[in-house]
Amino acid sequence: MMLEKTTRLTYLFDFYQSLLTPKQKSYMSLYYLDDFSLGEIAEEYDVSRQAVYDNIKRTEAMLEQYEEKLLLFQKFQERQKLMTKLREFSPNIENKAMFDSLLNELEKLD
Amino acid sequence: MMLEKTTRLTYLFDFYQSLLTPKQKSYMSLYYLDDFSLGEIAEEYDVSRQAVYDNIKRTEAMLEQYEEKLLLFQKFQERQKLMTKLREFSPNIENKAMFDSLLNELEKLD
Repeated sequence: MMLEKTTRLTYLFDFYQSLLTPKQKSYMSLYYLDDFSLGEIAEEYDVSRQAVYDNIKRTEAMLEQYEEKLLLFQKFQERQKLMTKLREFSPNIENKAMFDSLLNELEKLD
Repeated sequence: MMLEKTTRLTYLFDFYQSLLTPKQKSYMSLYYLDDFSLGEIAEEYDVSRQAVYDNIKRTEAMLEQYEEKLLLFQKFQERQKLMTKLREFSPNIENKAMFDSLLNELEKLD
């Protein structure tokens, strides 16, 4: 699997997993986070490899549709860039501790 | 209609409208943004007042479910509070124009 695609889908899964069914969540989590193969997931759930593959492909398409509509990943990336630039102000700020803690709290919301 | 409920649903509609059907979007937009009455929407679409009411109630419930899962409105409110505190640093910052413009770009992402 291409690294870039894996990274993107791991992020999309992170943003939209609350909108998936429990089965979709389990398969995606094993495949993308725990690095199980399709065959291993199939064995674990006693279903065919093809069934796991189809489910994961459908879920990936759903995640891309949610992203097209809500843009959470895209906005996250844009926000990260702006946060990096804001952090560059930190060394010159008098109340640096307070400033840094506000930025940390902002990032935690992402 | 209670003002607080209207404000909340207007925000939820803003955040999640891309996940609604065209009909749901039209009814909600007329009701919450253009201040049409249920009767006026019913007349406009040549359906019963009850049908409009049921559709809007179902849509409101959907919006609350999306918020329960994705928390976009809640995170927006928390982010707004942090942004207000960050803005207080602005007067004492040397490159104030740059700082303000970064904050503005951040807010535009919400």
